[in-house]
Amino acid sequence: MGLLIPGPAPDGGATSAARSAEEIVDVVRRLPLIDHHCHGVVTTDLDRAGFERLISEGGQAPDGLTNFDTPIGLAIRRHCAPVLGLRPHAPPATYLARRAELGVGEVTRRLLATTGTARYVVDTGFLSEALTTPGELAEVAGAVGHEIVRLESVAEQVAASGASAGRFVGAIADALERAVQDRRAVGVKTVAAYRVGLDLDPARPGPVEVAHAAQAWFAAGPGPRPGDRPRWRLTDPVLTRALLWAAVDIGLPIQVHVGFGDADIRMHRVDPSLLTDWLARHRVPVMLLHCWPFHRTAAFLAAVHPHVHLDLGLALHYLGPARATAVLAEAAEVAPFGKLLYSSDAFGVPELYHLAALAFRTGCADLLARRVADGEWSVADAVRIAEMIAHGNAARVYRLDPIAAVPTRPAGEQR
Amino acid sequence: MGLLIPGPAPDGGATSAARSAEEIVDVVRRLPLIDHHCHGVVTTDLDRAGFERLISEGGQAPDGLTNFDTPIGLAIRRHCAPVLGLRPHAPPATYLARRAELGVGEVTRRLLATTGTARYVVDTGFLSEALTTPGELAEVAGAVGHEIVRLESVAEQVAASGASAGRFVGAIADALERAVQDRRAVGVKTVAAYRVGLDLDPARPGPVEVAHAAQAWFAAGPGPRPGDRPRWRLTDPVLTRALLWAAVDIGLPIQVHVGFGDADIRMHRVDPSLLTDWLARHRVPVMLLHCWPFHRTAAFLAAVHPHVHLDLGLALHYLGPARATAVLAEAAEVAPFGKLLYSSDAFGVPELYHLAALAFRTGCADLLARRVADGEWSVADAVRIAEMIAHGNAARVYRLDPIAAVPTRPAGEQR
Amino acid sequence: MGLLIPGPAPDGGATSAARSAEEIVDVVRRLPLIDHHCHGVVTTDLDRAGFERLISEGGQAPDGLTNFDTPIGLAIRRHCAPVLGLRPHAPPATYLARRAELGVGEVTRRLLATTGTARYVVDTGFLSEALTTPGELAEVAGAVGHEIVRLESVAEQVAASGASAGRFVGAIADALERAVQDRRAVGVKTVAAYRVGLDLDPARPGPVEVAHAAQAWFAAGPGPRPGDRPRWRLTDPVLTRALLWAAVDIGLPIQVHVGFGDADIRMHRVDPSLLTDWLARHRVPVMLLHCWPFHRTAAFLAAVHPHVHLDLGLALHYLGPARATAVLAEAAEVAPFGKLLYSSDAFGVPELYHLAALAFRTGCADLLARRVADGEWSVADAVRIAEMIAHGNAARVYRLDPIAAVPTRPAGEQR
Repeated sequence: MGLLIPGPAPDGGATSAARSAEEIVDVVRRLPLIDHHCHGVVTTDLDRAGFERLISEGGQAPDGLTNFDTPIGLAIRRHCAPVLGLRPHAPPATYLARRAELGVGEVTRRLLATTGTARYVVDTGFLSEALTTPGELAEVAGAVGHEIVRLESVAEQVAASGASAGRFVGAIADALERAVQDRRAVGVKTVAAYRVGLDLDPARPGPVEVAHAAQAWFAAGPGPRPGDRPRWRLTDPVLTRALLWAAVDIGLPIQVHVGFGDADIRMHRVDPSLLTDWLARHRVPVMLLHCWPFHRTAAFLAAVHPHVHLDLGLALHYLGPARATAVLAEAAEVAPFGKLLYSSDAFGVPELYHLAALAFRTGCADLLARRVADGEWSVADAVRIAEMIAHGNAARVYRLDPIAAVPTRPAGEQR
Repeated sequence: MGLLIPGPAPDGGATSAARSAEEIVDVVRRLPLIDHHCHGVVTTDLDRAGFERLISEGGQAPDGLTNFDTPIGLAIRRHCAPVLGLRPHAPPATYLARRAELGVGEVTRRLLATTGTARYVVDTGFLSEALTTPGELAEVAGAVGHEIVRLESVAEQVAASGASAGRFVGAIADALERAVQDRRAVGVKTVAAYRVGLDLDPARPGPVEVAHAAQAWFAAGPGPRPGDRPRWRLTDPVLTRALLWAAVDIGLPIQVHVGFGDADIRMHRVDPSLLTDWLARHRVPVMLLHCWPFHRTAAFLAAVHPHVHLDLGLALHYLGPARATAVLAEAAEVAPFGKLLYSSDAFGVPELYHLAALAFRTGCADLLARRVADGEWSVADAVRIAEMIAHGNAARVYRLDPIAAVPTRPAGEQR
Repeated sequence: MGLLIPGPAPDGGATSAARSAEEIVDVVRRLPLIDHHCHGVVTTDLDRAGFERLISEGGQAPDGLTNFDTPIGLAIRRHCAPVLGLRPHAPPATYLARRAELGVGEVTRRLLATTGTARYVVDTGFLSEALTTPGELAEVAGAVGHEIVRLESVAEQVAASGASAGRFVGAIADALERAVQDRRAVGVKTVAAYRVGLDLDPARPGPVEVAHAAQAWFAAGPGPRPGDRPRWRLTDPVLTRALLWAAVDIGLPIQVHVGFGDADIRMHRVDPSLLTDWLARHRVPVMLLHCWPFHRTAAFLAAVHPHVHLDLGLALHYLGPARATAVLAEAAEVAPFGKLLYSSDAFGVPELYHLAALAFRTGCADLLARRVADGEWSVADAVRIAEMIAHGNAARVYRLDPIAAVPTRPAGEQR
């Protein structure tokens, strides 16, 4: 930009553009966030192996390597170390020693406090026994917590409770309705991407089809779980479709895991465009989560289907602030600004919440400031778009109380 | 660049590099364009809903949102408003009021005049009754118009005319030949991507196979069309293949919709690499249209198959000038410079032609100027490449009269 | 970056950041490379047609075009011409005349000498009779040569030698073991991507299944080869799977062609995520080669599977230094730094080795210097990461003698 098209608005100049960019950065730094998809944090101190496992989607690093030698590992040393009172780039051992010294409670408080998150919308369906509840997470952070019900967990609880295969559809619907009401959930989530992939028959399965699939699942019984009780694990495509349609009936926003995840992901089967025929059959809000490396495809879906939204959770902290600008710019190529949401998808260690928020603010500030500096967007539009992505869209789609706009500081007060 | 490799050529310096970049920008600004794939514009005034529907591939925005809050919406306010005599970033209501005040004719004339398009190659196969013909479009713009025959439309007319299933292959071939001759068409186009996807059997279907498929189609009859006459709509993969091979027999360039489009697109089924086996069976020029987000794959196909070409139509105006550089740079990673073409794929409102041409010139100028500034390309090569992409390649492939090179201004005259 | 997050470390400043960037560039310029995947060079002089065929994955350019009008063509004129004593941007005819004048030996010596490659790990399985052996290549370059055994070639030799279908599994295993020992190979390679695609059943095929497939192959006999002896060519998916599992049994690193290649590639069938189920069944090192345009997916696989690695070979020289930074930055978004390797995948003409090394150094220097300038990484970490990618990871995975670190020049000596 800037070579062919003259820069900022005709009545401005380089100084005015710089002042506008500063204004954007100032607003983005102070934007309250709604983290529309995250998990809890662990409540116990972690040794090095335990910490390393939680900063990689691959778990423990292979022999001879360390998960600190990754983009997120370097970002932790750079950006989290100062929050714990260390110099940037502190070596891993120093970082972990300081972490142990402060204790999990203080580390969590410090790192969450920096995120500026006003509301956490928490998926409680994975390893919830080891993590903070939405209420606990919100309390530590001085924020409000909301809950998301994981569809597969509900179905697994129904299976564990000894439901009849013939009445499984109804039992799921009842259990889902109850879970949503009891927990005052604001949405539901599916991890079909992990279990069966997204290349599903889009049609609602018939009751007989579901009964047969349930019967087969019940006959197979719960899977063994190393060092733990047996566990029911839903991996049947027919039952997954029954769950997706039960979610459509509930009508709350449906979060769908897409793209980036752990070693269980078959990336070619989690392209969100595989959902298109299902998306074409209903109008309940769908929230495409993570999306990287399909963020352009997800943005396209959001652009052409009225009920589809996307975020860049998980990618933000794993890629780090250095790449957040690039990925956000790609996602924002065609995504309507009313369809793009902030989330961290942070899990387990508070470093991830800190980095996700930092990467989001960095990417957002850079993108908007560049557009304003190029004269492409007005400051007023840029600020409005930042507020939509940071919290406005989430408040609207999940029907949360809206958050007030950030007051723009008088010019003299700027940093 | 520039860190490891010393910048511009040894005998130059920073001043020389800047002068070269200016020269490139000046040439690119004045390049005549051949828009090798576009549609007509609507000839009636539009209300807000009508205008908003035409600036999104998703149609009307969902409740509570507006299509002005998208990358293209902001680009219209920034870049088209001044052409209509408004300040940049004019609010949507102001923009639309001014548009109504000027009237569709004047708005169209002003916005097309800015594009610098010398030739429009127009696909007349979609909603043609509501749009300008190639001749009308060209007249408004002071340019030359050419026509592209849409394959599916020809087959649908044959079906509507009551052809016999047993002679359908021959009837298609005859009708296509006639359409091409009558309209002096310079190419044909398929929208197989919308109808059946690109994962087609590459083989030419046998006559019996085609007859059976035609019989099934004729038996089903034309589909109902809300508020309109019944309409024949080809969605059969065998008949689609018959059409593609009829096009090969004609021998004119075959435009193929790829990637980006409206809500009918199943993105995972419109990856251009799905066409590879068909591409391997003939040598008739194939023009991959739009391509985003598969523009890297399309560029690869152009690099390894002698008859394959690509463009970035539709993406240019929907992404806007701010992202055109990035996407063009990705497409140009491996695309031979003789295989990359300009097109707008603009449809309906003249704003799209204006933005496509602006985005193309911006992206092209930035890419070439950067390469020259880095010392990677000479000015002469950069100018030559710009001319190939802007019009030279289209003139060669479609056998149009070549366009003369832009005279380089004497140094003293440069802005 | 840099807008929201204050730049370099608190005790530094703009001067310090610039000095750090220079230090990185200086280290990267002098880094010894292990080229963990390449081929030999032709040993005879080439005419223009012969040279053009070797600078495109598409072979000869179509009528009216030249392979010099491609990103790599311009890069050769810019970067190789000076090595041959010409001015940058020398015209193709001048370049080829100078090349002929110097002769293939001198041209090869000059262009390889510039690469700074300490070790070449050479795939000898393709057109090896026309190319230098690993030893010859290494001798010309003053480096060490190692060999990679191509799995399909071994199976084809077994077939040509008249093996029995019933004992084919055992014969492959024996032949592979022998080939690895005789040639002191450090790894094996599969071109399944070219032959059958990567969408393979992940399971080890049973002996009866293999015997049937072998029988069918032997019955069909060797394919005709234009102007040459008949040639056995393995394209059976069951036999390909048998080979992959024979490779797992050997335990040496398994190189897998992924993504970018010639016109035989069906891009949608060479996405590396298609291998996930096979990757999940063993822990032998897998080296994903080339990867573009799937480099983000390949990086994801490397991040979540302990034994998966990736490189950007082939893409580096075909995209050229101008785009190496962008692609490397995308690959490095989630790739653990211990999993990313340098390779050229150069073949035939020494220009490709020169450009691959140059593009790698350019991209690497820019990426690291930017991270350091932004304050994201320390200089020490950046240098350590550069050494891992350039040679450390390859030495570790292939069990080669490690290469000593580059001594950092005392500050006063820096350019």
